[in-house]
Amino acid sequence: MNYTPVANTDSSPPHPCHKGYDVVRTWSMKGRASLSQPGGKVALAELDVSVGGTAAVEDPRRQHKPPAVMERLLRRCRVQSQLVRECMAECLGVYIMILFGCGSVAQVVTTEDKKGQYLSINLGFALGTCFGVFVSRGVSGAHLNPAVSLSLCVLGRHPWMKFPFYVFFQVLGAFLAAATVGLQYYEAIRSFGGGELLVTGPKATAGIFSTYPAGYLSLWGGVVDQVIGTAALLVCVLALGDGRNSPAPPGSEPVMVGAAVLVIGVSMGSNSGYALNPARDIGPRLFTYAAGWGDEVFQAGGGWWWVPLVATCIGALLGTLIYELFIEVHHPGGPAELPPLDQGVAMGTTALEGVELDSEKPCNGH
Amino acid sequence: MNYTPVANTDSSPPHPCHKGYDVVRTWSMKGRASLSQPGGKVALAELDVSVGGTAAVEDPRRQHKPPAVMERLLRRCRVQSQLVRECMAECLGVYIMILFGCGSVAQVVTTEDKKGQYLSINLGFALGTCFGVFVSRGVSGAHLNPAVSLSLCVLGRHPWMKFPFYVFFQVLGAFLAAATVGLQYYEAIRSFGGGELLVTGPKATAGIFSTYPAGYLSLWGGVVDQVIGTAALLVCVLALGDGRNSPAPPGSEPVMVGAAVLVIGVSMGSNSGYALNPARDIGPRLFTYAAGWGDEVFQAGGGWWWVPLVATCIGALLGTLIYELFIEVHHPGGPAELPPLDQGVAMGTTALEGVELDSEKPCNGH
Amino acid sequence: MNYTPVANTDSSPPHPCHKGYDVVRTWSMKGRASLSQPGGKVALAELDVSVGGTAAVEDPRRQHKPPAVMERLLRRCRVQSQLVRECMAECLGVYIMILFGCGSVAQVVTTEDKKGQYLSINLGFALGTCFGVFVSRGVSGAHLNPAVSLSLCVLGRHPWMKFPFYVFFQVLGAFLAAATVGLQYYEAIRSFGGGELLVTGPKATAGIFSTYPAGYLSLWGGVVDQVIGTAALLVCVLALGDGRNSPAPPGSEPVMVGAAVLVIGVSMGSNSGYALNPARDIGPRLFTYAAGWGDEVFQAGGGWWWVPLVATCIGALLGTLIYELFIEVHHPGGPAELPPLDQGVAMGTTALEGVELDSEKPCNGH
Amino acid sequence: MNYTPVANTDSSPPHPCHKGYDVVRTWSMKGRASLSQPGGKVALAELDVSVGGTAAVEDPRRQHKPPAVMERLLRRCRVQSQLVRECMAECLGVYIMILFGCGSVAQVVTTEDKKGQYLSINLGFALGTCFGVFVSRGVSGAHLNPAVSLSLCVLGRHPWMKFPFYVFFQVLGAFLAAATVGLQYYEAIRSFGGGELLVTGPKATAGIFSTYPAGYLSLWGGVVDQVIGTAALLVCVLALGDGRNSPAPPGSEPVMVGAAVLVIGVSMGSNSGYALNPARDIGPRLFTYAAGWGDEVFQAGGGWWWVPLVATCIGALLGTLIYELFIEVHHPGGPAELPPLDQGVAMGTTALEGVELDSEKPCNGH
Repeated sequence: MNYTPVANTDSSPPHPCHKGYDVVRTWSMKGRASLSQPGGKVALAELDVSVGGTAAVEDPRRQHKPPAVMERLLRRCRVQSQLVRECMAECLGVYIMILFGCGSVAQVVTTEDKKGQYLSINLGFALGTCFGVFVSRGVSGAHLNPAVSLSLCVLGRHPWMKFPFYVFFQVLGAFLAAATVGLQYYEAIRSFGGGELLVTGPKATAGIFSTYPAGYLSLWGGVVDQVIGTAALLVCVLALGDGRNSPAPPGSEPVMVGAAVLVIGVSMGSNSGYALNPARDIGPRLFTYAAGWGDEVFQAGGGWWWVPLVATCIGALLGTLIYELFIEVHHPGGPAELPPLDQGVAMGTTALEGVELDSEKPCNGH
Repeated sequence: MNYTPVANTDSSPPHPCHKGYDVVRTWSMKGRASLSQPGGKVALAELDVSVGGTAAVEDPRRQHKPPAVMERLLRRCRVQSQLVRECMAECLGVYIMILFGCGSVAQVVTTEDKKGQYLSINLGFALGTCFGVFVSRGVSGAHLNPAVSLSLCVLGRHPWMKFPFYVFFQVLGAFLAAATVGLQYYEAIRSFGGGELLVTGPKATAGIFSTYPAGYLSLWGGVVDQVIGTAALLVCVLALGDGRNSPAPPGSEPVMVGAAVLVIGVSMGSNSGYALNPARDIGPRLFTYAAGWGDEVFQAGGGWWWVPLVATCIGALLGTLIYELFIEVHHPGGPAELPPLDQGVAMGTTALEGVELDSEKPCNGH
Repeated sequence: MNYTPVANTDSSPPHPCHKGYDVVRTWSMKGRASLSQPGGKVALAELDVSVGGTAAVEDPRRQHKPPAVMERLLRRCRVQSQLVRECMAECLGVYIMILFGCGSVAQVVTTEDKKGQYLSINLGFALGTCFGVFVSRGVSGAHLNPAVSLSLCVLGRHPWMKFPFYVFFQVLGAFLAAATVGLQYYEAIRSFGGGELLVTGPKATAGIFSTYPAGYLSLWGGVVDQVIGTAALLVCVLALGDGRNSPAPPGSEPVMVGAAVLVIGVSMGSNSGYALNPARDIGPRLFTYAAGWGDEVFQAGGGWWWVPLVATCIGALLGTLIYELFIEVHHPGGPAELPPLDQGVAMGTTALEGVELDSEKPCNGH
Repeated sequence: MNYTPVANTDSSPPHPCHKGYDVVRTWSMKGRASLSQPGGKVALAELDVSVGGTAAVEDPRRQHKPPAVMERLLRRCRVQSQLVRECMAECLGVYIMILFGCGSVAQVVTTEDKKGQYLSINLGFALGTCFGVFVSRGVSGAHLNPAVSLSLCVLGRHPWMKFPFYVFFQVLGAFLAAATVGLQYYEAIRSFGGGELLVTGPKATAGIFSTYPAGYLSLWGGVVDQVIGTAALLVCVLALGDGRNSPAPPGSEPVMVGAAVLVIGVSMGSNSGYALNPARDIGPRLFTYAAGWGDEVFQAGGGWWWVPLVATCIGALLGTLIYELFIEVHHPGGPAELPPLDQGVAMGTTALEGVELDSEKPCNGH
């Protein structure tokens, strides 16, 4: 039921003992394994081998075991453009997030709470987000959310030029995920709704895909709800990534971002379903519109559909502002005194020539 | 729905360093591993390769992309005072904690257990605490609790001078968070209570904000309950931070403190709602008093309101004493042989004058 | 109720090294930190102080305390064959996974949801998978799933020669685990079913062991369900192990794989019980067939039994393809420029001949 | 609501920037902080200061701020005996485990599932175990379970001499925790039971403290249940600590041991309440016997009380045997070829004189 490609299971490793384990890491991650190694000198030694010595060694096994056919076919599909790669990562990341998120709603709705409850929906979106981030973070930074992309652009941490591309592929990923959930739960939805695709009422199934407000909620109440929710999300994730505060342990960021989504679902979910994300809402809504739920997906809740688009963006900006003004801006040796990026990199380079190399490391050591 | 600012996908981020943090990460997307590597020399070698030319190259982007407008505006708001920074961090930390904690109660109460159950309240406070700590720990140490501040002062690990400031801002944060929950759930609370704001009875909503005892509980029973609960909390968090015992993995402290709150909620929550924290209780109680629930918030439960203020402080001191006497004091090479705090600080300072490298440590020392 | 063999409290443990592991820990209880320290020289310095005299001192305890009897007996059973070791690890890994997974279903079914609900089944399989991986990962790579083994073979990352062995022992482990659950819940199952072993109906207990589709689900709907579910699983675990993306923190892979199983159970479990794994389904099904549930276990659900065997394999291949095409193949400096596996291994081996230090790396390379 | 003593909140740190943070670590954990530092040379430098230079530096603040009164009083209570320290740690560890575990049962029973369900009991014991381990692991190794102590003694990894002391203090801790739960839930139990302390029937409260079998379970069925459960526990925790397999990430062992208890509770809890631990069962049972539930606590369930004492010990030995025979004994370069402890330490010392220092580090790096 699982698969950890890291561990070596090849019978041919001639290396003694458990070495094999690491060796394959070296291979599977290119330069990585050698670098996570504590002893400076050895790493050096190994790097030498990796870069230079390899060709010299005549490994007999190399002859009879060429790259697998599949592997070679895959290599043909390689894309070089950084932007295209990022867009694909955002698309797949949002896809995974919504596949699990909306899937969990579908499971709870179509089984009438027998195979899951509201908490399992919270878990579905939380872990969906977590794996969406795992899938895309190393390539695109895992925005997965137009409101987040917007905040980063306003802050000057992401280029405006990429903004429309990110948003389009985020919405596309959400649309495709909703379509997949619709396919996977096709029979369940038909069975639950008696063959009808309803937007409101006890047999409604449109809520599987996008958010609708509770009966008591006014549009303005919904705006307030989404602004607060998205602001809370941004405060949390900004804190998780703030290296001068108390950041998430290295590598665990996706899990902690998922935890932020979990706690928001647990504490701010009942008013209007905690969209928090324009793409998460409009993508699946477009799917329901196209797939047979019809116009009503835009009319229900007094024309609710625009609230998750607008209020989340406002909330994201507000949350960014709050975290910046309460915490980040005041860090000693803060932004004002620090050199801009390129200079920073240059500094790093310079430092490397002296003892001070280490002075750079701690910052990104985690 | 999420945002991991760590991964930078901008090809020309002009934002300043420390930002050293971000900068290297950006770079590390391409040559990532080299930076997570402790051995200086290899990093040196590889860094040379990776960014070798950077310093020399006149990057054209540096010219046309000055610090973003927003960034520059934010810098103007910078506060230098350490105490003010700490107070703001405590305030925001408690705010986040109570926003999620009381929000989860509001969700369960106003949906009558349909969108959450007691366990989701436990999760709300646990993860609320977790993110409250993430938000404030690097700045103020994340007390988030007057009873904790008191224990630290008694132990001599926190200056008495700061105590009133911390307490005030903790209570303020809790008050503001309660107000935010009141705003976010305004319509839900009105709808649930039929327009009335009640403190007791089946339609009571005051319990969303502060704690009230179960019907069978006497005041003394409540005192015992809160003393035991807060003592258990302190034993757990002292163990998590005891470097000579089995401390929480570095960086995961906020999560484990949240887990301690979770288990206390799961095992000691039914008697009186596990306040564990004077600020968590009195701040929201003051909000309900002011917002229309009236005098009864102080009269209900036989004048319950003072118990979470007093008993939690006693419990915190008791828990500290238990952990110290059972475990910490006996560590070999224990406190008796260690220099007092200031000396430790002095030591650190001295060290810094020798080799500057330590000046960066805090970034990853956590 | 627990046991952390890591912390050694024996003052004279005679057990052998690697054990180097334990040994140093023991020692490190007193001088702990020095060992978690990357910089060689300091460690040197401190170690000298801490254990300086040890080698010289003739420890009297060494004489009177030879390796424990049990320890010596165990050593006699040692198996050298790598393949046999891997098969035993796969068998025990799947055993643990199914023991907890099917056990949690048994608990929920036989107590009629009183001691657990659908979420506890999700947790049972998730944590079962997690511990199945912990048990086997260092030896066999923790495939625990014929569909995963198949994908790896197709990708050329696992030798076809081992494929049938892995599959056989995976199925065997699942069969034995089902038998253990049957034994542990023998009286509960008899009591629940009134002495009868039923495959369908309200008193059915065959669903404790293997999966059956929901009433509304067609065979083709089931195929789609299992293809999507297994593909999602593979995308997640491939991302977790992709060192050039955002991999799981080292050592936490088992937990994150369990989290992937959890989210799939929460979002894709209601149609047909998320088998995701041919061995997980056919092993227990064979047990129920043999143990008295009879032919119907193959006839129920319109001959459902083959779907979890076939669809999961298709899904695993599809998921692999998706992750490769969307993410992995495009990594800069990607596979095309990397040496094939054996070469990687050879490199590793060569490196080992240079500086022996790497030989220890695997211990902490994870 | 929480307390992370690690972060520095003292106003007097004169060190620039966030240095303070780490500095206090140095202080609060003695030599630790300096050692978790990546740059070898700096660590060296700082160590020099710590050990030698400190006295020389005349820090003006040292005069006006002596060790806090409380701190000095605590130091007077210091115990030197290693055995006494270990016994206190085991006692407090079991106390915390049972306090949370039995507390969660009390909460669920006395609120009739309104403030918790079976899953919250599972969480109570899981997180109780987790924090029990955090509290004691660095001192006593966190056996917390006579069956575990027994297994370790049989394996020769723990001295038989200490066995009775450990067991006594484990039982004592469980007894005291049960008494505390009895005190905290005194009014709740009286209210729930109508003033009576019952062992069986719908108003039974003895089950809050110790385990009783389900109605359908025979004594032999109970023995099988407890043998399987405890064996599963041991397999999991042995895997978590096996440095040559896939061990738990360093520092996270307490959490993962808690997760093992969680999954056992979720999958093996309904037959007889998963005691898994003689002390966990007999300690609270003795409390109920003494506190008024009377003889029946030993007579109920057909004289059930001895099963959790005997079967768990058998199970622990069986689980140890299974893990050793399936996995641990076969590790290449396994125990048989490794030198005994003292030699291992000696090796380490020797290694330190050459380049090979690093060869030791990886083994305990996590």
